[in-house]
Amino acid sequence: MTPAFPTFNLRDENELSLNLIEAQYELLKSKNSANAKSLLVLICGIELAGKGEAVKQFREWIDPRYLRVKALLPQLIQPQQPIWLRYTPEFPATGQICLMFGAWYSDLLATAMHSSKPFDYTVFKSYIDAIHSYEQDLIHNNIEVVKIWFDLSWKSLQKRLDHMDAHEQQLHQLYGLDWRNKKQYDTLQKVRKQITHHWFIIDGENKQKRDQMFAQYILYRIQQSKQHIPIETLPWRQHPIPDNLLHPATQHKSKEEYKAEIAELSKTVARLLRQEKRKIVLAFEGMDASGKGGAIKRIIKKLDPREYDIHTIAAPEQYELRRPYLWRFWTRLQKGRNIQIFDRTWYGRVLVERLEGYAKPHEWQRAYGEINRFETDLSHHQTIVIKFWLAISKDEQERRFKARESTPHKRFKITDEDWRNRAKWDKYLDATADMLAHTSTHLAPWHVIATDDKYTARIEVLKTIIKRLHGN
Amino acid sequence: MTPAFPTFNLRDENELSLNLIEAQYELLKSKNSANAKSLLVLICGIELAGKGEAVKQFREWIDPRYLRVKALLPQLIQPQQPIWLRYTPEFPATGQICLMFGAWYSDLLATAMHSSKPFDYTVFKSYIDAIHSYEQDLIHNNIEVVKIWFDLSWKSLQKRLDHMDAHEQQLHQLYGLDWRNKKQYDTLQKVRKQITHHWFIIDGENKQKRDQMFAQYILYRIQQSKQHIPIETLPWRQHPIPDNLLHPATQHKSKEEYKAEIAELSKTVARLLRQEKRKIVLAFEGMDASGKGGAIKRIIKKLDPREYDIHTIAAPEQYELRRPYLWRFWTRLQKGRNIQIFDRTWYGRVLVERLEGYAKPHEWQRAYGEINRFETDLSHHQTIVIKFWLAISKDEQERRFKARESTPHKRFKITDEDWRNRAKWDKYLDATADMLAHTSTHLAPWHVIATDDKYTARIEVLKTIIKRLHGN
Repeated sequence: MTPAFPTFNLRDENELSLNLIEAQYELLKSKNSANAKSLLVLICGIELAGKGEAVKQFREWIDPRYLRVKALLPQLIQPQQPIWLRYTPEFPATGQICLMFGAWYSDLLATAMHSSKPFDYTVFKSYIDAIHSYEQDLIHNNIEVVKIWFDLSWKSLQKRLDHMDAHEQQLHQLYGLDWRNKKQYDTLQKVRKQITHHWFIIDGENKQKRDQMFAQYILYRIQQSKQHIPIETLPWRQHPIPDNLLHPATQHKSKEEYKAEIAELSKTVARLLRQEKRKIVLAFEGMDASGKGGAIKRIIKKLDPREYDIHTIAAPEQYELRRPYLWRFWTRLQKGRNIQIFDRTWYGRVLVERLEGYAKPHEWQRAYGEINRFETDLSHHQTIVIKFWLAISKDEQERRFKARESTPHKRFKITDEDWRNRAKWDKYLDATADMLAHTSTHLAPWHVIATDDKYTARIEVLKTIIKRLHGN
Repeated sequence: MTPAFPTFNLRDENELSLNLIEAQYELLKSKNSANAKSLLVLICGIELAGKGEAVKQFREWIDPRYLRVKALLPQLIQPQQPIWLRYTPEFPATGQICLMFGAWYSDLLATAMHSSKPFDYTVFKSYIDAIHSYEQDLIHNNIEVVKIWFDLSWKSLQKRLDHMDAHEQQLHQLYGLDWRNKKQYDTLQKVRKQITHHWFIIDGENKQKRDQMFAQYILYRIQQSKQHIPIETLPWRQHPIPDNLLHPATQHKSKEEYKAEIAELSKTVARLLRQEKRKIVLAFEGMDASGKGGAIKRIIKKLDPREYDIHTIAAPEQYELRRPYLWRFWTRLQKGRNIQIFDRTWYGRVLVERLEGYAKPHEWQRAYGEINRFETDLSHHQTIVIKFWLAISKDEQERRFKARESTPHKRFKITDEDWRNRAKWDKYLDATADMLAHTSTHLAPWHVIATDDKYTARIEVLKTIIKRLHGN
């Protein structure tokens, strides 16, 4: 759904500035509304076409207090993380505009141009596809992605290089290629054209026109961003509740048996996690008191706290609510260690947020696909995603709630909210059934551990991790 | 003001856990109150003394949802940034507890132990002094700094190494030194004793005692943190207002003269900034409409937006208010580029926050010293701090306000708040006089540009930067 480009005429600068500021303030004012948007402007192009100049001029026309400009140096694509991951901390909150030089497209072009091995076309294409899907998900989650290519003819580029002093030339080499090399220039143009068909292309030849096109296009996109995407909520086909969720196993392991097994398993898990070259994401979901914390405790038993991160996921903070719901997970993964453990996860979107109405039907329905793409993207980048649903019976939950209430130092674990959630038990089961049906993928399958016996559950979790690390 | 250590007895674990959770919740509940505190627990020690185990046990006693555990690998001290800077993004918000392995002390010890050149004792000592001052500032700004050393005798360490398999031994080498080398062990003990006199020392010999001492000491410190530090606000001696603030120059430069000068100066500034190997912090303060934005525009004229960061400082966000007021500047500097431009700065503490009462008298009075230490620490780490106060007369401000109001695309720059601030003109002058008197240091002096002529002001700013970059 790329917007058509506006027709372009040179305009009075003061009036353009006024319009930009008005649009910017309107965007800002809407920051906490349901249709709040942010603008992420990705800027790429030929060196010396005037990207930097256009950004500086834009900064003067708009209120610079609410404009962020970000530039990370391009790097070759890393096999261990999705190409977009390193840029996520800089994503604008709703109401904000962020101009970002390069971003994932610079990395992609840098890799295509610099790689010592020729870049396989199929790989290149698969990256573009993954990026497009990712951007689509950003757009659905209120980040307008605006892509602008600054072009410049070979002749003009050479002329501009001629007019620079040696010192300036050196600077511009920093950011990329040898701009005196015609063959390289032609290759870059060929490669980038496979990316930029739906981009807004600005010819850097005429400086005034360049700056105005840049500003006018962004203005247009801010104004467009107010338009509601028509929402179609399709009738939802509820998946049947799997039998093991309704009737978890009741067989109990004796304490002796458990103790004999668990110590050895904890040791093996620690060894495998530690030796693993890939990243590992362990994701725990399950009803309250289903034993997530207890299982995690046995996983880390023989690890050092410096080897993993545990993320206990609660309600998002205000600044997180102003970004896509996956954002707080992206940023955690981006800076984390090799072993990442989540006590509750991004599946909150299709569980609590669905049930409590924090996510509207079209939002949580769309979330299954978004989550699948997220996990697939991780899995394609040397990350093993292991997801657990810990299922217990409703009676067992009650027993555990009461046991907690009668133990002083465990009482904090049980609140009125837990009892309120419990009242929605059946609805949670429905949501779980849908979740399992829609997000158990080949690369990131759900492991349902359905038992009322804590000991059995923990043993099963550890065994599953061992299996996944051996087999994957 | 190191608290005395509590006497230590083994306690009932469940009761200890209960006390910890209660203390934790009380800390959490107070997160937005005036006396809100956070706990930053720095953990260092001999390898295999059981730091990791104690942390894991602590995590089980407390509510893990509100506990963060952070570990960055130690690195040798970097000459380009204050030793504490890289850890600041992880600092806990009020109400939170963060256990941090190592932090600046690991870097310091790593440097002392690993450096190929022997670490000069004077340098070592100066780092310890700087760290202590820094921690004192953290404590004053609501972060309780808790320092714990896990000790282990040579004999016990060797015994524990004997009992590990090769794989585990390898892991522990990762984190540091050769723990089989007695001479190294002795040196480390000698070096660390110069650091740890006021630390809480835990002997790792007995595991149960170790875990309890760790937990009990943190419990004690959470409870202590509630105590108000007695506040003494001394009678404040207002500094006289410098004459140039009261009577800025009125001489005007002609447009022709200005144009002839400014282009060349912008070029020179760009070249010097670009060539500079040190980091550069350009800090702009001044009354509303004093021309901060215009001056910045001329500084960046010949630079590319990818070469600098501009930070436009407005009121802090909620999550920033829950940390020391300098925190949002630390984190910006930590990840930023070489050229950092601030449109308004940390001096807000002693200007708007002083005038509006957001900072209490003892807070803004203390801030002068804190800011001086901050800037000194930057200056000692290859950073040039250049601070401008742009002074205009009250009449000139009125002229500019009115000019803005009558220009549609500039009207946004002027709000009711600006007129309200203007009503406090004299109080701002007082605050400015104090600020200039207390924070114009040898390494980071204030440059007061006092003129009602925009052109002259811009020229002076650029010339000052040139002078500082040449002369420093």
